[in-house]
Amino acid sequence: MTAEMGIFETMFNCRAMRRLSDQPVPQAQLVKLIEAAEQAASGSNSQRRRWIIVRDPAQKAKLAELNRAVSEDYVSARIERGEALPHHDRESRKRMLQAVLWLARNMQRIHALIIACYEFDAPPTEQDRARAHSSVYPGVQNLLLAARALGLGAVLTTYALNRYEDFVAALELPSNFAAYALIPVGYPLGKFGPVTRLAVEQVMRFDKWSI
Amino acid sequence: MTAEMGIFETMFNCRAMRRLSDQPVPQAQLVKLIEAAEQAASGSNSQRRRWIIVRDPAQKAKLAELNRAVSEDYVSARIERGEALPHHDRESRKRMLQAVLWLARNMQRIHALIIACYEFDAPPTEQDRARAHSSVYPGVQNLLLAARALGLGAVLTTYALNRYEDFVAALELPSNFAAYALIPVGYPLGKFGPVTRLAVEQVMRFDKWSI
Repeated sequence: MTAEMGIFETMFNCRAMRRLSDQPVPQAQLVKLIEAAEQAASGSNSQRRRWIIVRDPAQKAKLAELNRAVSEDYVSARIERGEALPHHDRESRKRMLQAVLWLARNMQRIHALIIACYEFDAPPTEQDRARAHSSVYPGVQNLLLAARALGLGAVLTTYALNRYEDFVAALELPSNFAAYALIPVGYPLGKFGPVTRLAVEQVMRFDKWSI
Repeated sequence: MTAEMGIFETMFNCRAMRRLSDQPVPQAQLVKLIEAAEQAASGSNSQRRRWIIVRDPAQKAKLAELNRAVSEDYVSARIERGEALPHHDRESRKRMLQAVLWLARNMQRIHALIIACYEFDAPPTEQDRARAHSSVYPGVQNLLLAARALGLGAVLTTYALNRYEDFVAALELPSNFAAYALIPVGYPLGKFGPVTRLAVEQVMRFDKWSI
């Protein structure tokens, strides 16, 4: 038997990790993340997810700048406002937003930025792009779980993609590709820990959604 | 330590399972699937995924009929045509499509149909709906992996949602909800096994997508 982490243990401790180091990760581990991602099903088993592992400092700087330009001011304003959510008190909300801000300012230093893409036959319409979500995001989730099991931190981000033309130009993405997510990956500067979630009774019903 | 399945062992053996039995599954296991799904991250930690576990025979019959109406003729025609894909030869393609056809004809008999939903503040636009994909599908992937680890078969389907008005009416979904996927869950009639995928070199590049 293997010494790998248990499936539920991994899921219940797979916190979004944003403060990540520049310490090199063995390339074989980065490739293993992609292999894990690719085990996810895809619509009609089309297997058209594509992945780019960005480690080149100049490339990381370009992508990090797009992420910063979109998120820094936006997140700072939310921290100032001191917003809260029903299931997320002001303090823990603030800690999360501060980590987002840290990421806005330090993404270029993180060891690897992994980009989730999809290859179409021809340049995709908005509708084509959205239809691929059910194939792309299950792969991303496998990647996040695999990272956790290997002791790596990771988080799904999309801010940089709001500057979509610049984003795909930086990656020299062919016109029949679409990009979906930027996932920073590296050894965590903080600690792993359990996630906190709503009680399951609050998010499920039997047979129909009777209020 | 637990006896749970390893994370990579689960991912590499998490085949889409369509031929599923009507044998009852303990309710605690179905609820555990939802708990596992909910451990996935969500955009800004909004935790707005919602789930419906459908076991009522009349409810299952309604949803199965919508799935059948959309998929049966479509899939039959594809089996007739004998299509192949670069990574999927004619024979294995046919076996997959025959399983889809089996599901079209037998979904109402499967023990449980789990519906993945999302709760918005107000009736969502198409754009709102698409934006929730990055929160919904990671949860769905956790659910599929958890099912595999518990010895249950499951598969992500969306055919029935092409009849969207009828689909949400059957589930009495509030107008501020959207539905995303129908996941049949039950003990498998066939065997679990490894998935087959493209070699990782075919789906990844470093730093940019240089052809």
